[in-house]
Amino acid sequence: MLPGLKAGFELDARLEADSVSVMWLGLCELRLMNDRRWPWLLLVPQRPGIEELHDLTPLDQAMLTFETNMVAQGLKRATRCTKINSGALGNIVRQLHVHVIARSEGDPGWPGPVWGFGTREPYSARDKHSFIDKIRAAL
Amino acid sequence: MLPGLKAGFELDARLEADSVSVMWLGLCELRLMNDRRWPWLLLVPQRPGIEELHDLTPLDQAMLTFETNMVAQGLKRATRCTKINSGALGNIVRQLHVHVIARSEGDPGWPGPVWGFGTREPYSARDKHSFIDKIRAAL
Repeated sequence: MLPGLKAGFELDARLEADSVSVMWLGLCELRLMNDRRWPWLLLVPQRPGIEELHDLTPLDQAMLTFETNMVAQGLKRATRCTKINSGALGNIVRQLHVHVIARSEGDPGWPGPVWGFGTREPYSARDKHSFIDKIRAAL
Repeated sequence: MLPGLKAGFELDARLEADSVSVMWLGLCELRLMNDRRWPWLLLVPQRPGIEELHDLTPLDQAMLTFETNMVAQGLKRATRCTKINSGALGNIVRQLHVHVIARSEGDPGWPGPVWGFGTREPYSARDKHSFIDKIRAAL
């Protein structure tokens, strides 16, 4: 079985459409939200049927914390942003996913949250691959 | 020293003004956001000078995960909400604090995030104390 391919797990169709794969971590697939307005990553634990952080096992909770904080630190280093915003909302897409977003003073919507703000602006293919390379190098 | 009173830690003035103490956990003070539009809790790790989750020590990260998930589970049970929203933003108040919010279909701003939505509506004294009692009982 390929790494990250856990039995019974299927990525939500909306997450699939809005983001692209960056790499596999131990528990999560790391994905890039295809929205060039902010450097915006998603961690998707490869566990079927889980909607809330507290429904993960204690070991998976610890793994997710480790992976989220590693990603946040790498993203902050790579982007030199002002502040990391992280969150698990799931009001629209119920499959558990954790957002890690690099925010900088004066970015779109600052200092408000990114969720629900304006309209997604996809990357050009070149910018997307160059940003993915940058993130991979930072982790 | 009283539990939760860690040397050198001082609660941010805006958090102090917008929320009230519920109880002390091992790492965090648990506070209720004084906004009756949503059941909205804050966890404030009693560590001075920390702005990002990933700047906590690994042990504190693990403690915070444990406390956040315990609070989220209790809040969901107590409110029978549709979905927990949790997040650490800090674009305005930089002192590290984690939001745990009970969201229900049709609540103000649903399915968007609560941050930056409309204007805070304080509880009546009676409703505030009754909700705090309910949260304490659920934890």
